[in-house]
Amino acid sequence: MNFYISNKMSGMRPSAIREFFKYAADPAVISMSAGSPAPEALPTRAIREIMDGIMREDLQKALGYSISEGYPPLRESLKIHLRERYASFDENRDELIVTSGAQQCMDLICRVLCDEGDVVICEDPSFTGSVNCFRSYGIRVVGVPMEEDGISVEQLEQALKEHGSARFIYLIPNFQNPTGYTMSLNKRRACYDLAKKHGVPILEDDPYGDLRFSGEPLPAIKTMDEDGIVLYARTFSKVLSAGIRVGYLSFPKELLGPLTVAKQCADVHTGMLSQLLCHRFLTQCDLAEHIREIGEIYGRKCALMLGELDKLPPGKINYTQPEGGLFVWAALHGSQSADDFATRLVKEKKVAVVPGSAFFADMAPGPNFRMTFAAPAEEQIVKGISAIAELLG
Amino acid sequence: MNFYISNKMSGMRPSAIREFFKYAADPAVISMSAGSPAPEALPTRAIREIMDGIMREDLQKALGYSISEGYPPLRESLKIHLRERYASFDENRDELIVTSGAQQCMDLICRVLCDEGDVVICEDPSFTGSVNCFRSYGIRVVGVPMEEDGISVEQLEQALKEHGSARFIYLIPNFQNPTGYTMSLNKRRACYDLAKKHGVPILEDDPYGDLRFSGEPLPAIKTMDEDGIVLYARTFSKVLSAGIRVGYLSFPKELLGPLTVAKQCADVHTGMLSQLLCHRFLTQCDLAEHIREIGEIYGRKCALMLGELDKLPPGKINYTQPEGGLFVWAALHGSQSADDFATRLVKEKKVAVVPGSAFFADMAPGPNFRMTFAAPAEEQIVKGISAIAELLG
Repeated sequence: MNFYISNKMSGMRPSAIREFFKYAADPAVISMSAGSPAPEALPTRAIREIMDGIMREDLQKALGYSISEGYPPLRESLKIHLRERYASFDENRDELIVTSGAQQCMDLICRVLCDEGDVVICEDPSFTGSVNCFRSYGIRVVGVPMEEDGISVEQLEQALKEHGSARFIYLIPNFQNPTGYTMSLNKRRACYDLAKKHGVPILEDDPYGDLRFSGEPLPAIKTMDEDGIVLYARTFSKVLSAGIRVGYLSFPKELLGPLTVAKQCADVHTGMLSQLLCHRFLTQCDLAEHIREIGEIYGRKCALMLGELDKLPPGKINYTQPEGGLFVWAALHGSQSADDFATRLVKEKKVAVVPGSAFFADMAPGPNFRMTFAAPAEEQIVKGISAIAELLG
Repeated sequence: MNFYISNKMSGMRPSAIREFFKYAADPAVISMSAGSPAPEALPTRAIREIMDGIMREDLQKALGYSISEGYPPLRESLKIHLRERYASFDENRDELIVTSGAQQCMDLICRVLCDEGDVVICEDPSFTGSVNCFRSYGIRVVGVPMEEDGISVEQLEQALKEHGSARFIYLIPNFQNPTGYTMSLNKRRACYDLAKKHGVPILEDDPYGDLRFSGEPLPAIKTMDEDGIVLYARTFSKVLSAGIRVGYLSFPKELLGPLTVAKQCADVHTGMLSQLLCHRFLTQCDLAEHIREIGEIYGRKCALMLGELDKLPPGKINYTQPEGGLFVWAALHGSQSADDFATRLVKEKKVAVVPGSAFFADMAPGPNFRMTFAAPAEEQIVKGISAIAELLG
């Protein structure tokens, strides 16, 4: 049968990241592509103990249906967590739901806030997983260039003037994906003021905020949200486990009804084994100490990657110096396309990186590619950069 | 801020089932509302053993990202399962993905096959969770009346003539939700032939197929799918656990690309703890024996409910005699609205059922309501029906 494919999906291609992730199934490939956390940074001992406790004490709860907003004790512990640790939840103004990974925050928000053909404004480049989700709702993505201290505020203002009915502004202020750049405090404030002035909500995505290994922490834009215009997405993927698929969204209360209905329609509720694990992790473990420990791991691995890159002959490649997160963003010199480079790298050298074209609003090939220092072992980082050096010649 | 709410979501209300489910949080309420499996029918000992094995042998796999299509060994075991047990998978024609509950099958299919304003044809009444999902994509739902042996074939043909570009026909042939009716073999064949003739795919939803406790099993419509027009949704919710949120969809191969992209956009992949649990359950446990055992439990509880209903004075209430599944569908005599009745029942008698208006395409109040015999304990079933008798007066 010749199936009719919807307008919104008919032009879509698989995520380049997810496709490059498949190469990682080959054990001979060094994967510096997907944004997986460092395996040694996962609290496996705590997870074993927690799961054992769930099996003994909470099994019927783990196996049964729950409400769509999320397991109530987890929602409460997340509200406290956001309020006390990040000043990003105000009980008078905000509500919170548990989602199936932060990816689902994007999905539910699009369903609730956007019609087909609507505009969403993004950093350019931005996280392809989110941008693809926007596209899968038939949304037009308008990119605003990234600078080293975050999105270009002048061009954001320009975009807001041109697209007055933009449905939201999608921002990743901490250790942005893919660039690794962090938005300055001034720009956070400027973005908030612009959003308020133009009446356009901000969707602040903060998957990496806990993974800072240098510099000073900056407050989330959500901490400035006196006007109730910021939706704030976070995840357990980087500090606890990506595979369990638990994220959460805090947002102005008035959106609780529509977001709950959207969640019901999407997958009824997030898996209870995963939700119970997160709840016990938050309430039984020393999260601050865990975050300090994994910060050391990521700092060491990032320094190793940058140190290896520093050994390359000058004039071959540029790269960012992230203060946290998972990624280094590199640019080939000259007119070489990173798409070709990444393909040759994985085929000839068995090293996977993600070509930058995956992250740009226009998807045009260019000199950039993204590498992660998180998942590969230290000797793989050394070998991976060495393979890049060989291919650069 | 006055948030703009999308056209597709602005008219939507929360699922009545999910809302009535909240009453069940009150331990004093006897819940005969949500379609939760019988707690005593869950293989808790096997689940404890399996989870212990995952913690010992597969923890890194459980915690890491996987591919969007599903954990590859689970996909393979599901294909074998469908092929060998149900003749509902043809490797030359079909593909399969793992979803976050069967609910997500509906979600991904709508995204891939439907534009806003498109028509989907459903049994009327039908499962409100699916129908709400269709509506959340801006789909127009056209209902075709149910009869005791399944959808009215004459009126389905009429609907297909009127709505030539309907995107799919949504059917629950086994122990339909909410009616408990099972579609006859003749009607299965007739629906398939009509779908083929009109070039409209069938979405066959089979959450309860394994829960037959009387009569003879009938082949799924998918077994007739020589032309590659049937998408077939199943779930682990009723035989293993609803809370783990694992479903799966088998479908003609040509849809693998778009459905995989839709899955990436929705939630990247289904939680790995849950997927590993399902894989080990399928490959390590005696599924046939488990299904036989739980069939006995459901058969006994259904007979108990029907027996209690039989004791009511005549002329008060009608009800269906299901051969499997979770539900009895009742109708009040006279002009009483089941919406009022259900509200009084939960408030005055602390017994929760779901009013039928939740399940009809036009959502109009009427005499019907849905009860489940699965989750309540046997003494609760007796008390629940007794409370209904009291309220009927």
